[in-house]
Parts: sequence; structure tokens; C-alpha cells
Amino acid sequence: MNYPEQLIKLIQVLRRFPGVGTKSAERFAFQMLEWPEHQVREMATVIQALPDKIDHCSSCGCLKDVDKCHFCDGQRANAKVLCIVSSPRDVYSIEETGEYRGHYHVMGALLSPMEGIGPEQLTVAPLKERIQRLEIEEVIIALDSTLEGDATSLFLKEELEPLNVTISRLAFGLPMGSSLDYVDGGTLARAFSGRGHF
Amino acid sequence: MNYPEQLIKLIQVLRRFPGVGTKSAERFAFQMLEWPEHQVREMATVIQALPDKIDHCSSCGCLKDVDKCHFCDGQRANAKVLCIVSSPRDVYSIEETGEYRGHYHVMGALLSPMEGIGPEQLTVAPLKERIQRLEIEEVIIALDSTLEGDATSLFLKEELEPLNVTISRLAFGLPMGSSLDYVDGGTLARAFSGRGHF
Repeated sequence: MNYPEQLIKLIQVLRRFPGVGTKSAERFAFQMLEWPEHQVREMATVIQALPDKIDHCSSCGCLKDVDKCHFCDGQRANAKVLCIVSSPRDVYSIEETGEYRGHYHVMGALLSPMEGIGPEQLTVAPLKERIQRLEIEEVIIALDSTLEGDATSLFLKEELEPLNVTISRLAFGLPMGSSLDYVDGGTLARAFSGRGHF
Repeated sequence: MNYPEQLIKLIQVLRRFPGVGTKSAERFAFQMLEWPEHQVREMATVIQALPDKIDHCSSCGCLKDVDKCHFCDGQRANAKVLCIVSSPRDVYSIEETGEYRGHYHVMGALLSPMEGIGPEQLTVAPLKERIQRLEIEEVIIALDSTLEGDATSLFLKEELEPLNVTISRLAFGLPMGSSLDYVDGGTLARAFSGRGHF
């Protein structure tokens, strides 16, 4: 294809977005060529400033503005509870539910022998230190319901048990609004074994 | 949502991509935060340079590198034919087929009363001038098969007829590999009226 050189470069970088292949990247790129120049410049400026303006909080691992961490520096209504998640994004999903107002701790990675991430790659020491410093009474493990999430949850449970905290994990069961026809067998089995009275 | 300020800005600009809503923009943005810094900077640099490095050729309307237009400055195998398209992207789709090796002319806009684009907004004078200067013998109108494309094709046909050139339009019919069950009535009707012997 005889695209101008800069267009080829643009398509290459746009392909890095998740789920964006060559076709979509081309669509994005040709659309950008129709944008008014100030919009293109604005996007470049915003992206350029990203590494300088957003960082991970060195304490909890959440995203923070340059000057402060919304989660560490603010008051948490339920200051004796800590929730362990795998990525900064999960924090926002949980915040949005309004169900939880305690502390967070972002693990960053999950155990994954396939990707060469073993127990020694997970940094548990800062987590333990925080649990003790904040005098946490309950730890909620909110990791993905995947092989990696399950393994990491078990590992963390064993690591944290000596700290004398209550450890719980998110419930498994039917997603809201789901019809039994469409739920997989594994989920259905967990929903049975975890059934509750009402 | 308590996203850091720069993240909110990033999500806003990413939403400008076609077909990207808030959810996808968030997915893109959080993914970008995982990228190594040099990749983020590279994307910013590429986008920043876009308006300076890509321009529309003032003659044919195709995309050009800063210094030259691949289509105007190169030799075209079939120099007596000119193909009229609506956008620079169409040029590449046609080039890819390998069926056509003549000149191109990008209209930029199609007639669209809904968007306030009337005949006076279409710049036909440079097109006529090119047809005469290049001593074009055949004009192929390759506009979209939409209401706007049809109207513009008819309009161009009337405008160009006095120039004493053969004017044709792309064929209408079944898309390759299509099953009759799935083809709409309009297409099927055009395929009948345009049927050919074999």
C-alpha cells in the first residue's frame, strides 16, 4: 500500500490499542486526517503528558494525580477493611458500585506460570506492612475468577493468615439478570454450593 | 468517577475515534497506562507530526507526503483515464484491486441537502481543468452507492458531458461471494437490470 510514510506510522501505533487490528487502525487514521488540526494537536498533547501526570501510588498502587492519591490521602469511611485487586482499573469498577468504602491494594500481577510469574514476583511485603500499619481487620480478596486469580487468591490467603485478619473473597454465583440457560456449568455449580437463605 | 484528571482528558480525546464510546475509550486509556513510557511518547510524537507531514495534494486531492504526491508525480500506466472518488481512502481501496492504473480525483464532499452541501459547494472547476489539461478520454465515477453518491454522480455526469469525454460509473450487482438469500431487493434488482452474457 502506498500510504504516505507518516500514515503508515500512525496505523502502526494505533494498532497497539486492545482489539484494534489493521482495518480499525486504518479507519481511525483516515478519520484523524479529517479532524481539524487543533484536535489532532490536542490528542498529541494529552498523550504526551500522560507519563508525567499520572503515576501509580507507591503505597496502594492505585492511579494518582501528580500531587496526591485520591485513595490514600482521603478519608476512607471504612478504614479497617482492605480490598486486594489486580489492576488499578478494578478499583474504579468497585468504587462505582458504592458497596465498598475501605482501602485498596493493587497487586499489579497475578500468579501465572505461563507468563513466568511465580510467588517471588508478587510483592507481598508492602501489602503485609500496610495491613499492619493501617491496623486492618478484614481483607477482601477481589481478584478475577480465573485460573490465575484463583491461584493468587489462595497464595495470598496463606501469606496473610498469620497476620490475624479476617480474609474473605468475593462471592461466586449467577450474574445479575442472567437466565439459567445461558450460565455455564461451573458458575451454576458454584451458585449451588454457595446458596443462601432468604 | 474519580479518575485522575489527565485520564479523564485522555478518555475524552479517545472517544473521538469512530465507533469508540466511553467504555472502549476507557479500555484504551487503561491499556495505555500499562505501556512502557517510550511507546506512549512515540504515539504522541507520531500524532503531533501528522498535520505537518501529511497533506492533501492540491491537484488531485489524494494524500501526499510533504514533498510529493505519489499519484500526480509518478507515471500512471493508463494516463488517459481519470477516476472520481469521494475520499482519499477510496483511492487506496481501488489501488489495492490492481484493476485500475489511471489518474484519480478526490471530490472531498458529496451532494447532501441534509448537511447543507449543494452543487455550489462542490468544486467542479479544478476537475474540469484537470480533465482538459491531462487530455483525459474516459472518466470513471466511483462514488458510493448511496443517495448522496447517486445524486453527485448524476450531477457530475451533467457537468462533464460538454467536455467530450466518455463517462462511466462503477457496476452495480451482487457482491462477490454473496448468497442471494442475503442480498437486499435493491441490489438484486440492479443485478438483474445490469445482467451480462457469459
